[in-house]
Amino acid sequence: MKWNVYLSGEIHTNWRDEIKEKSIKINLPINFFEPITDHNLSDDCGIKILGKENKNFWHDQKSANLNAIRTSTLIKKADIIIVKFGEKYKQWNVAYDAGFAAALSKPLIIFHNDENQHALKEIDASAHAVVKNVNQIISILKYTIKGKI
Amino acid sequence: MKWNVYLSGEIHTNWRDEIKEKSIKINLPINFFEPITDHNLSDDCGIKILGKENKNFWHDQKSANLNAIRTSTLIKKADIIIVKFGEKYKQWNVAYDAGFAAALSKPLIIFHNDENQHALKEIDASAHAVVKNVNQIISILKYTIKGKI
Amino acid sequence: MKWNVYLSGEIHTNWRDEIKEKSIKINLPINFFEPITDHNLSDDCGIKILGKENKNFWHDQKSANLNAIRTSTLIKKADIIIVKFGEKYKQWNVAYDAGFAAALSKPLIIFHNDENQHALKEIDASAHAVVKNVNQIISILKYTIKGKI
Amino acid sequence: MKWNVYLSGEIHTNWRDEIKEKSIKINLPINFFEPITDHNLSDDCGIKILGKENKNFWHDQKSANLNAIRTSTLIKKADIIIVKFGEKYKQWNVAYDAGFAAALSKPLIIFHNDENQHALKEIDASAHAVVKNVNQIISILKYTIKGKI
Amino acid sequence: MKWNVYLSGEIHTNWRDEIKEKSIKINLPINFFEPITDHNLSDDCGIKILGKENKNFWHDQKSANLNAIRTSTLIKKADIIIVKFGEKYKQWNVAYDAGFAAALSKPLIIFHNDENQHALKEIDASAHAVVKNVNQIISILKYTIKGKI
Amino acid sequence: MKWNVYLSGEIHTNWRDEIKEKSIKINLPINFFEPITDHNLSDDCGIKILGKENKNFWHDQKSANLNAIRTSTLIKKADIIIVKFGEKYKQWNVAYDAGFAAALSKPLIIFHNDENQHALKEIDASAHAVVKNVNQIISILKYTIKGKI
Amino acid sequence: MKWNVYLSGEIHTNWRDEIKEKSIKINLPINFFEPITDHNLSDDCGIKILGKENKNFWHDQKSANLNAIRTSTLIKKADIIIVKFGEKYKQWNVAYDAGFAAALSKPLIIFHNDENQHALKEIDASAHAVVKNVNQIISILKYTIKGKI
Amino acid sequence: MKWNVYLSGEIHTNWRDEIKEKSIKINLPINFFEPITDHNLSDDCGIKILGKENKNFWHDQKSANLNAIRTSTLIKKADIIIVKFGEKYKQWNVAYDAGFAAALSKPLIIFHNDENQHALKEIDASAHAVVKNVNQIISILKYTIKGKI
Repeated sequence: MKWNVYLSGEIHTNWRDEIKEKSIKINLPINFFEPITDHNLSDDCGIKILGKENKNFWHDQKSANLNAIRTSTLIKKADIIIVKFGEKYKQWNVAYDAGFAAALSKPLIIFHNDENQHALKEIDASAHAVVKNVNQIISILKYTIKGKI
Repeated sequence: MKWNVYLSGEIHTNWRDEIKEKSIKINLPINFFEPITDHNLSDDCGIKILGKENKNFWHDQKSANLNAIRTSTLIKKADIIIVKFGEKYKQWNVAYDAGFAAALSKPLIIFHNDENQHALKEIDASAHAVVKNVNQIISILKYTIKGKI
Repeated sequence: MKWNVYLSGEIHTNWRDEIKEKSIKINLPINFFEPITDHNLSDDCGIKILGKENKNFWHDQKSANLNAIRTSTLIKKADIIIVKFGEKYKQWNVAYDAGFAAALSKPLIIFHNDENQHALKEIDASAHAVVKNVNQIISILKYTIKGKI
Repeated sequence: MKWNVYLSGEIHTNWRDEIKEKSIKINLPINFFEPITDHNLSDDCGIKILGKENKNFWHDQKSANLNAIRTSTLIKKADIIIVKFGEKYKQWNVAYDAGFAAALSKPLIIFHNDENQHALKEIDASAHAVVKNVNQIISILKYTIKGKI
Repeated sequence: MKWNVYLSGEIHTNWRDEIKEKSIKINLPINFFEPITDHNLSDDCGIKILGKENKNFWHDQKSANLNAIRTSTLIKKADIIIVKFGEKYKQWNVAYDAGFAAALSKPLIIFHNDENQHALKEIDASAHAVVKNVNQIISILKYTIKGKI
Repeated sequence: MKWNVYLSGEIHTNWRDEIKEKSIKINLPINFFEPITDHNLSDDCGIKILGKENKNFWHDQKSANLNAIRTSTLIKKADIIIVKFGEKYKQWNVAYDAGFAAALSKPLIIFHNDENQHALKEIDASAHAVVKNVNQIISILKYTIKGKI
Repeated sequence: MKWNVYLSGEIHTNWRDEIKEKSIKINLPINFFEPITDHNLSDDCGIKILGKENKNFWHDQKSANLNAIRTSTLIKKADIIIVKFGEKYKQWNVAYDAGFAAALSKPLIIFHNDENQHALKEIDASAHAVVKNVNQIISILKYTIKGKI
Repeated sequence: MKWNVYLSGEIHTNWRDEIKEKSIKINLPINFFEPITDHNLSDDCGIKILGKENKNFWHDQKSANLNAIRTSTLIKKADIIIVKFGEKYKQWNVAYDAGFAAALSKPLIIFHNDENQHALKEIDASAHAVVKNVNQIISILKYTIKGKI
């Protein structure tokens, strides 16, 4: 059996690549899913494909709606959702993904540093694990799939 | 028919009271639901009821889990979810509520100022309306329930 | 037990009033639900409440989204959906309501004249009854609820 | 991962072939689903297989029910529903498909020209994108699947 | 709390009246639901309301579809489904009701005599109780609701 | 795409083999599912595997429950359910299967002769097609999958 | 709004009465649900109503199935499930209730002493709170419903 | 078609290996799923991956939550759940699995010795079969999949 794992959240560091590389090295049978991680493109895809808007609101809505086609589909197909909160930006869409996945009873792994601990308490409370680094994620995936650490 | 409306989000201004008062004045048949809005109590309810913890993480987890009993139950019972993003705090739990409600196909009304517009684009995209003040909310509730503006 | 009956579709004749009056006369225990039937208001509610738009598309989207708060909520709460196709307009929203209700396994009664019979064949095929006048609807409701004709 | 995309609606132009050809050219991993697009056959399949009827109504019902075996099954299996409204015919079955898919929370892309914009406002409001030509569809599919434009 | 109990099946003896009378006598808080039990009317309601048909098949389909509006709605609302198989007729609709309720995970009580025991084995296997008389049903309802025999 | 088709009902003629052979001849991509069709074994599997019973009732319950493991699983996995009512036996389990599948919104094809038409009216009313022979089934499957007759 | 709270588990102490009395004293708007708590009757209801059995297994199955009519219905209707593990007996049915409720995404409060902590770790992990006495339960209910401690 | 079979419960004998070996010998097309069966590792995985805890409660919660990622995912994917109650330990997590699977309408096979029969009556009552040894399980799987004993 192949596991489907969705990697939600922060798009400005290479944590997804790290996870993928390390998973491949130890032969974990995983299909990784992820949102579009090109920040500019995910901001502008709507107007690039569907035409310009004068108001920022509609500019953003067009893109957000396009991005949601991918995001909502892949979260629904995922067995496990890993959600990273980074250092920068509001990241409300990340918290939204966590709530969306929780309502569908998907197991959540939340990845963040200590600083954000209090602010993320509700999201952590809905998770199966709260981690601080990629190695912990790899260990959880390995343990979940292979029963070894 | 009475409508169930859940008021999620910011707990440091009196926007909930305003909505309730204005709804009563025009006789809208609504049961308003809301999370615990006493900030300190919602932070400490867990340890007050279930005993102290040395680590902040478990302190917070106990409270967040207790709060979720109320929150998840009432969101599931609500017909409409109104979500306010305020000026302060990370408010990830608010975005989480929005995602949770969206996954359950609940109609969402998102309430925030212009400043947060870009950061909230994904959440706005899942909403039926994005508003800037309480009067707009009252108008939407009145229109939805009574068919008048 | 009170029955919830949603009256979808044509808003330019008084068929809803007829159904309601005749139901009251024979004491049928029904809560009737319906969309906003004020054509102008349902077209313009969005910009009236949420602010003007230069483009017709966004003007319409704002209103359509507001109307959907009511429509989707009430269709979900209904036990029976009655859908009238009238003589005028495209009425795609009416067909959309029928599809929406069908996917939720709600019993459908479709009301239209002979002229539209071929064009409505798919929608009729998903219905429990296809009727040509209000009296047939009243008879079905009476029979369904009271077991008499 | 292969994506399942259902192409609903207009059957008198070759828009489906265009989409399929262009998708193949850029190697999009998509299974395309579609209704029976042979207009005469989809009108008469019922009586051809199940026997003649004197009344048009039953003639049509037999065919519509047979067509629904395919249609409802494939919409349920699809990840994305693309719905085209053309220039001719009432196309109520197309709007019905959109409502059916929306109730199942499937992402919708609505394809129509400007003329029908106002009449389709409710359906557009339930969509993730509203497009005017095949190239926009291809761009959305490419962006959704490959993250590039 | 009031319990909703649907009484499906045989319509040629007065078992439903017996159950209702005995339940009232011991003050069981139950809303009893049932299909239309007027055999002739349930056979002919379709053509009486919607117009005559030359073919028996369509004559029957019209009525069966009308009856299903009531039947499917009330089974969905019921907490417990009691299904009686009588001495006469094929009673396939009764077995259909049992299957329908089972798929919705409704508790089933099946009521039949010994003679039909082998033929009803699959349906009995999906039931919480198999009974031979009304007194057993009353005892089960009393025990379920009041915890006494 | 391969279609999953469940063949429920009568087990004393070779209609399943006919369908399978004819489907293979015209290359229909179908996985056929079916219940255990060995009458004696399906009656006695329970006591053969789990031990003898003195009472017929428990003898039958053990077998019926074992058979249901297969039946319920395969009906849930099927895209289309074909249900044959034969000449002999009560066949209540067949009607039960139809009700079970209908509650799960599975498209149904009902196969029976004219004699049983009135007794099967409720089940026919929940079906997408009512057929009288295997050739009609093959035509429907071919049309549904390939769009040709 | 009235809350529905199901009290599952141990039936040999008066913890349910304590909870009910204390809830009434502080005016909590709760409908309390519970299984049959008469041990002997819940063991023998099956044979008392449906007739004797020679084998213990069928004796027990008859009763367990009757009890499940009440239990499964009330757990589905409950907003919150409180589950007490006592000092005696295997209490596997209690753990079963917890699993059943968890699969339905019901908030769980687990009540047990320290001794059982390790053995109950999986069940505790699916809970919103783990408590050691009735006062903690009352506090949680009061906090959840009234927002005060 | 391959069947997914989840083997829940007792982890101190080699019953899973027996089942797998015997299934392979007779070519049953089954993917077997199972929890982590290394007792020590499943107790300590949480602190090994996520860091030590002073309190036993949190030590256990961390591990139980990690184990649940695997357990809940695989039970949801399984067609059949086989649950073994052994001689030792409380095994409440095993009963919890049974309840969880039952709420999802998964067919259950319960495996235990006579001694536990009365204590397991509620769980047995939710099962399709109750067995005493591996050979019975193999026979059921063979019969279910191949229709032979």
